[in-house]
Amino acid sequence: MNAIRRHPERARHELTDLYAVLDAAAVGTLATVAADGTPWVVPMLYARIGDVVILHGSTGAGALRHARAGAPAALSVMMLDGIVVADNLFDSSANYRSAVVHGTLRDVGEEAEVSALEAMSDALVPGRSTEVRATTRKERAATATCALTMDRWTVKVRDAPPTRPAVTTGGAWAGVVPLRTVADPPVPAAWIDSEAPVPDSVRRLVEGAAGFVTAAGDTGP
Amino acid sequence: MNAIRRHPERARHELTDLYAVLDAAAVGTLATVAADGTPWVVPMLYARIGDVVILHGSTGAGALRHARAGAPAALSVMMLDGIVVADNLFDSSANYRSAVVHGTLRDVGEEAEVSALEAMSDALVPGRSTEVRATTRKERAATATCALTMDRWTVKVRDAPPTRPAVTTGGAWAGVVPLRTVADPPVPAAWIDSEAPVPDSVRRLVEGAAGFVTAAGDTGP
Repeated sequence: MNAIRRHPERARHELTDLYAVLDAAAVGTLATVAADGTPWVVPMLYARIGDVVILHGSTGAGALRHARAGAPAALSVMMLDGIVVADNLFDSSANYRSAVVHGTLRDVGEEAEVSALEAMSDALVPGRSTEVRATTRKERAATATCALTMDRWTVKVRDAPPTRPAVTTGGAWAGVVPLRTVADPPVPAAWIDSEAPVPDSVRRLVEGAAGFVTAAGDTGP
Repeated sequence: MNAIRRHPERARHELTDLYAVLDAAAVGTLATVAADGTPWVVPMLYARIGDVVILHGSTGAGALRHARAGAPAALSVMMLDGIVVADNLFDSSANYRSAVVHGTLRDVGEEAEVSALEAMSDALVPGRSTEVRATTRKERAATATCALTMDRWTVKVRDAPPTRPAVTTGGAWAGVVPLRTVADPPVPAAWIDSEAPVPDSVRRLVEGAAGFVTAAGDTGP
């Protein structure tokens, strides 16, 4: 865990806090340093398995190859949970949950790749991995799955109304606009059998039972 | 604009495409390289003004000071617009809009700082900046506002059903679950006058008229 100097009251210090933030989101930004010393970033889907973050790319992606060579890397995750509206711009802010994890990337072995793929899938659509056919050998070969260690990390959470100003403007409104990600009814691909039933996992996602779409609230399994 | 090797069909090449992605989001991840050569990342609120990205921090934030010294920096932005559910894990994917901007950071002058603050506010709550009192000199002094130049950039968009597999599983469902960020009814701060009317800007945000909360659709002004 790293020390946080700015707004230390927003820091969270337990590993369970880190895992809660990582498990609530499914997209993060992976950063590393390019060969020329400049920053390299890319948004990526991810999942946590135990004490590593699994990232999923293609064996053809050049930039990820660089990061996979054991270079130091970092993952940043943020969920915007609300807009904090003060009676002035300076005190206006945002409610959020965020985490930054520093570590190094390594390939996961071929055996671990299948469970990594399943974890990635379940991070987006819980339970989907149990409904589909097994991943083929050819598909595994075309997939590059990396694990990021969690050597250092910080977690910051803001979940509060606007700060009360020293001098309040009479009658001015101030408060929070909560934000939430919702799933709309699923859109079937044009090429499927029109009688094909919507899978249970997708149904649960749309009904809001899956953790990740309730960004503003508690976040499920 | 940078070349994209992986999934080139997802690349967008016009400056208007870049601006559309940047203007549709309000949170990005800023990356730079720390003094020890390791990647440094932090999620940040931002706004675009013309051909620069405005980032907003505190004069007390040490890490941002490093980035402000003119070091190369990058901003990554992603909106997850949908979950692409195939009949197998390998073809499952996500629909998204993403942008990565590379440039250098510089301070904006004190004159520009007020319009930068207003742009930051309007990125979250369009029109709010016209409803509040002016920012004071003291508040401006406590605010560090930086501008990131857009020297190189990439935009990637996926907005499609799952790829049709060579061999389809009879009767299996496949499709897209669209995702969308919504604003819930505003929660007033406990310390305000209970008669204080909800500002027009906040009312519009909750009613969905403000661009940024309709992540899955067209994005307003």
